[in-house]
Amino acid sequence: MTDQPDRPAGDTRTDKTVLIVSAHAADFVWRAGGAAALYAKNGHAVHVRCLSFGERGESQGLWKQPGMDIETVRRTRREESSQAAAALGAGIDFYDAGDYPLADSARLQEQLVEDMRALQPDIILTHAARDPYNLDHQFTHEFVLRCRMIAQAAGHPSPHPPIGAPQVLLFEPHQPEQCGFVPQLLLDISPVADVKLEAMRIMGAQGHLVDYYTDLARRRGVQYVRNGGEKGVRHAEAYQRVFPVTARELI
Amino acid sequence: MTDQPDRPAGDTRTDKTVLIVSAHAADFVWRAGGAAALYAKNGHAVHVRCLSFGERGESQGLWKQPGMDIETVRRTRREESSQAAAALGAGIDFYDAGDYPLADSARLQEQLVEDMRALQPDIILTHAARDPYNLDHQFTHEFVLRCRMIAQAAGHPSPHPPIGAPQVLLFEPHQPEQCGFVPQLLLDISPVADVKLEAMRIMGAQGHLVDYYTDLARRRGVQYVRNGGEKGVRHAEAYQRVFPVTARELI
Amino acid sequence: MTDQPDRPAGDTRTDKTVLIVSAHAADFVWRAGGAAALYAKNGHAVHVRCLSFGERGESQGLWKQPGMDIETVRRTRREESSQAAAALGAGIDFYDAGDYPLADSARLQEQLVEDMRALQPDIILTHAARDPYNLDHQFTHEFVLRCRMIAQAAGHPSPHPPIGAPQVLLFEPHQPEQCGFVPQLLLDISPVADVKLEAMRIMGAQGHLVDYYTDLARRRGVQYVRNGGEKGVRHAEAYQRVFPVTARELI
Amino acid sequence: MTDQPDRPAGDTRTDKTVLIVSAHAADFVWRAGGAAALYAKNGHAVHVRCLSFGERGESQGLWKQPGMDIETVRRTRREESSQAAAALGAGIDFYDAGDYPLADSARLQEQLVEDMRALQPDIILTHAARDPYNLDHQFTHEFVLRCRMIAQAAGHPSPHPPIGAPQVLLFEPHQPEQCGFVPQLLLDISPVADVKLEAMRIMGAQGHLVDYYTDLARRRGVQYVRNGGEKGVRHAEAYQRVFPVTARELI
Amino acid sequence: MTDQPDRPAGDTRTDKTVLIVSAHAADFVWRAGGAAALYAKNGHAVHVRCLSFGERGESQGLWKQPGMDIETVRRTRREESSQAAAALGAGIDFYDAGDYPLADSARLQEQLVEDMRALQPDIILTHAARDPYNLDHQFTHEFVLRCRMIAQAAGHPSPHPPIGAPQVLLFEPHQPEQCGFVPQLLLDISPVADVKLEAMRIMGAQGHLVDYYTDLARRRGVQYVRNGGEKGVRHAEAYQRVFPVTARELI
Amino acid sequence: MTDQPDRPAGDTRTDKTVLIVSAHAADFVWRAGGAAALYAKNGHAVHVRCLSFGERGESQGLWKQPGMDIETVRRTRREESSQAAAALGAGIDFYDAGDYPLADSARLQEQLVEDMRALQPDIILTHAARDPYNLDHQFTHEFVLRCRMIAQAAGHPSPHPPIGAPQVLLFEPHQPEQCGFVPQLLLDISPVADVKLEAMRIMGAQGHLVDYYTDLARRRGVQYVRNGGEKGVRHAEAYQRVFPVTARELI
Repeated sequence: MTDQPDRPAGDTRTDKTVLIVSAHAADFVWRAGGAAALYAKNGHAVHVRCLSFGERGESQGLWKQPGMDIETVRRTRREESSQAAAALGAGIDFYDAGDYPLADSARLQEQLVEDMRALQPDIILTHAARDPYNLDHQFTHEFVLRCRMIAQAAGHPSPHPPIGAPQVLLFEPHQPEQCGFVPQLLLDISPVADVKLEAMRIMGAQGHLVDYYTDLARRRGVQYVRNGGEKGVRHAEAYQRVFPVTARELI
Repeated sequence: MTDQPDRPAGDTRTDKTVLIVSAHAADFVWRAGGAAALYAKNGHAVHVRCLSFGERGESQGLWKQPGMDIETVRRTRREESSQAAAALGAGIDFYDAGDYPLADSARLQEQLVEDMRALQPDIILTHAARDPYNLDHQFTHEFVLRCRMIAQAAGHPSPHPPIGAPQVLLFEPHQPEQCGFVPQLLLDISPVADVKLEAMRIMGAQGHLVDYYTDLARRRGVQYVRNGGEKGVRHAEAYQRVFPVTARELI
Repeated sequence: MTDQPDRPAGDTRTDKTVLIVSAHAADFVWRAGGAAALYAKNGHAVHVRCLSFGERGESQGLWKQPGMDIETVRRTRREESSQAAAALGAGIDFYDAGDYPLADSARLQEQLVEDMRALQPDIILTHAARDPYNLDHQFTHEFVLRCRMIAQAAGHPSPHPPIGAPQVLLFEPHQPEQCGFVPQLLLDISPVADVKLEAMRIMGAQGHLVDYYTDLARRRGVQYVRNGGEKGVRHAEAYQRVFPVTARELI
Repeated sequence: MTDQPDRPAGDTRTDKTVLIVSAHAADFVWRAGGAAALYAKNGHAVHVRCLSFGERGESQGLWKQPGMDIETVRRTRREESSQAAAALGAGIDFYDAGDYPLADSARLQEQLVEDMRALQPDIILTHAARDPYNLDHQFTHEFVLRCRMIAQAAGHPSPHPPIGAPQVLLFEPHQPEQCGFVPQLLLDISPVADVKLEAMRIMGAQGHLVDYYTDLARRRGVQYVRNGGEKGVRHAEAYQRVFPVTARELI
Repeated sequence: MTDQPDRPAGDTRTDKTVLIVSAHAADFVWRAGGAAALYAKNGHAVHVRCLSFGERGESQGLWKQPGMDIETVRRTRREESSQAAAALGAGIDFYDAGDYPLADSARLQEQLVEDMRALQPDIILTHAARDPYNLDHQFTHEFVLRCRMIAQAAGHPSPHPPIGAPQVLLFEPHQPEQCGFVPQLLLDISPVADVKLEAMRIMGAQGHLVDYYTDLARRRGVQYVRNGGEKGVRHAEAYQRVFPVTARELI
Repeated sequence: MTDQPDRPAGDTRTDKTVLIVSAHAADFVWRAGGAAALYAKNGHAVHVRCLSFGERGESQGLWKQPGMDIETVRRTRREESSQAAAALGAGIDFYDAGDYPLADSARLQEQLVEDMRALQPDIILTHAARDPYNLDHQFTHEFVLRCRMIAQAAGHPSPHPPIGAPQVLLFEPHQPEQCGFVPQLLLDISPVADVKLEAMRIMGAQGHLVDYYTDLARRRGVQYVRNGGEKGVRHAEAYQRVFPVTARELI
């Protein structure tokens, strides 16, 4: 449940730091569990930040149990998400901002800005810009861009130095076409498909989604090969970028 | 003026083959000259195919000379473009389909399909999907996608095997916002900026564009750094992709 | 001015419940008066909720009268809108959140969420997503989607059960093309055209709009027939959907 | 393999006529097989028109067999598609216009216009407007709209009367987000899921797609319920409309 | 029926030349009749070019008359359109390319290119880029852009000099939102509303459109005032531009 | 540093009033300095309102100096911006709402609404609707539209009368394509290019931008000529409109 130790921003590491900002406690598992596991497996640092436990809107299974109360839901969600993050090899922290709707606040903003400053992420993963089904998701998108901007500002007071200009990759919404989501990157998660499956199975409260997201990974895997990827790939996750890629080759 | 020798499709090379399809004889210099020079310099094969000499619509300077005739324009354009391609390190060929407008034909289609089959490109560069200023450019876009589809077809008769699914990258139109062009890749062309400059200077007939495209490369270079690229980069070219990238990391 | 009695959510009724969320006290008359009258006439329950009286920005006629004060404007608007709703056969309630701009608040959110829970609407009608002329309208759009999400949440405390997933239909803005509005449904309101006319005439403060919206209904009526609808249709209202239709036939 | 008998346009039938225009001989099975089977089962007339056999580009499996020739491919495709159509309960005809690319011609246009005139379809199903992977599909889209326009023209000479304004529904492309496809209708195909499966299995040459489209139908089925559809639905197909719906209720 | 005399391109006139390219013989009356009349009234030259008589698809009224034949339809359309143009104060010519669909050809292209060269228009008016109801309209849009490009080419052989870069303004389609049409210019046609009405009444074959387009002009007139235009304006026409305006003030 | 005297709304002036709303203290110089100088030079009133000093996020140069503190940054920014505005011939005022992020408040809203009421602008210039790099910019866009709406409301209490419907023109973002910015107006700023250069040079803290925006003005100047503008134009600024233009001619 505790996070991996931060490393000083100026260190000479060659590995990467990935920051995943999840609106609710489970989103990162379904949508970016493959990326998390892949980067952790390859020796990179992966940090998850959940703005909310999703205790009101994302825990339908728990609330069907008689006598359920909100503290039990929160505790259960925290435990499951922490175990899932551990299974993926990622650190995790919870900001506990409430859900449906997520409550914006100066404190919440300061938390994410400071984590961005402390972690100095090379890559940020979060929700897409639009989601008419789930306003918390589109809030999170804009909130992440706002905090990234603040964390870049030379004049923002903090013990940590400003961040650079990390790419922001958006993970796939539940109904991508309704959200204007267009895949720009298909990520091969075949080497960690079993790890993601294990993490998904930990999320008891939303168990019906395991099949759905397993099917989706296979579908994206077929498209991976169709788009010129290597033949053996079986599972993939789709991402859209916010900013252009800078590169020394034509990718 | 002649092309580089083709290599058999099944060879075990580790280098790449880049195919640039240019509507008119000069487009590839202004818009993709940096990419061409960079790939050539790094030991890859770069092939340019010009559908047209641009003899009617893209040779305003020549037509201002008294007594000019179309054969002289064509010959001049061929010579300049061939020299520019040589300066960039690229092979080149001309399909001579006329311009303003480019004339579609079964023969033209067969030429490009066969070249795709023979060259087995890993990457294709061409024009954007829309250009209200220049219908030849948007024709070329659709024509390239059509020929790519045919070249992929198992049942298309040819001495060469079908191609795979090479990415198609679109180069920047003259007035990008009017064409719906959105940069998704900023390519560092700093190491070959002088080579591109030399190639542009060869294109006498459109000499006023040298400053314009030098400025543009500097502007894209500033944006390269702004988007998280390495600090020393001074010149860049912008590209948009048609298909999602398939990758084993988050790029 | 009072609403129709709510029915228990689990009742076995076969008729529908329509909820219209109107930014200002008059919007529902001009934009959805036909739908309201049609559903009321056919025995369905129609409920209007006005977030604001539109007392500052939507009452230009009243403010031109000498000595006008805000309480008189509010009272007049309430009376006119209540009479118009009664003419249409709809219940109505006012949340009194102020206008220009509408003031978001936890109280306002709780009001609409609870009404959604109590009413269990099958269909929700509200404003379009964008309106550069009227920010209150685009606020209302997002506000309705947010409240719908909360009302669906199993963990939201309420005496009423969660709602399902009612379709959200957007009514036509005053200048539709500037708002990105695209008609997806043309609703035949011919059988209630006179009822809508009567309701519009009640709205004294904005009397100049009666002709405008009568013309518009005729225009949409012509398009109704052009798009394959029955020949006799004379008046229609246009709607755009937020979510896909689920159906057992190809509609 | 022969079509169902046409009925005179003025007959008093209450059932519907569905026309499916498929670029290649197999597209209608994967993409609209559920709609076809559902309408046939419910007593409507379903007619499939294949512009091409897909003999060059859509028969990869056949071309891998040694000694394959184009006539065998065409014959095999015709047989499979005819059997699949029969399994679905649909009539079928082949225009044999070639593929990769489909060849536009006055003859082809006349064929489809006359079939539209003779069949008087209430609903037309075809491909989406854009498909960068498959130019034949986007040609077919525009071709169908063009023929619909001609078939509507009072001055077009024909033994059959002009058609009305049938809705055109677009079926889901293989990679929908890359084609700008947005589902506007989720059609419950649960009652005929087994029929569609049988028809897909007949299409030996593209057998690997059976799993892909079965998964897709399940995914759209989950979304069907998520969007407010009935709980028991397991399989759905997604469609986008070209024209607004005209209706007497809010759908 | 004959056109106004052309003036040499280099003349020192201060008035403008407007070229209206109409797919069918009546489109220019309904959609740009106000602009034509206004410019003619103000002493400018207005030239209409109809690609087609619209004899098959746009003459429903005529074809309902018993014993009608195509030559009579063509002659009637020519007469009506010529009279309407005369009423508006515009010259007119017919290219007679057929309709439903309009037939592209080298001859048609040469005709419009030469007319552009001869007329040296300052402004071109034509159809919008997309129209799923009428493929002839979207063909005309692309055709005009293509001919404009050719007419600009220094190397295009012609007795007339190349044209400059005239703005292209798109007139309003019948169902603008379905065509992606967004008004960027509302033109006050109040001073010529009666002239347009007279011209519309001449178009006997499509008489039912007179009310429709009169209503539309009033609707756009209301919007004219709403968008800050002068109070007395009663009738307007809406236009979208293809290219940015160049100006010395902020318009 | 103080503003030009306001004139009563009903005065009979023939000159225009331009209001520029700038998120941070320097934005108006880089993005609209040409328009400001041009209008001032031509005898119009130009008023700049800076919502923020940009003290945290837009003053990287200052923060690099040892011992820098926020009050010094604010004072320096105020001085530089005031001098730049004076050089351009514009009045200026600062609302001091903080930056990264800009803090919305009732007070801020009241300030801009009252200034709009007092100034009665004919034209408003501000930021584009979307900017993923800088959320303050997109906040400012929406904030200006909101204040414009309030300032129009008859019922808003104020010593000044309501405003009309001034056009809102958006200036060019730093990376226009990523912000969905499409130039609709290219403004010739050649007559004041030197004035803008002087003003830009005053902005010491962001000196590296002088070259960038000088290049950009040249680039837009080339496009000005390409789009049919007068040949001698060398420098231009690009703008996008929010509302349609109302006019008595085809511009």
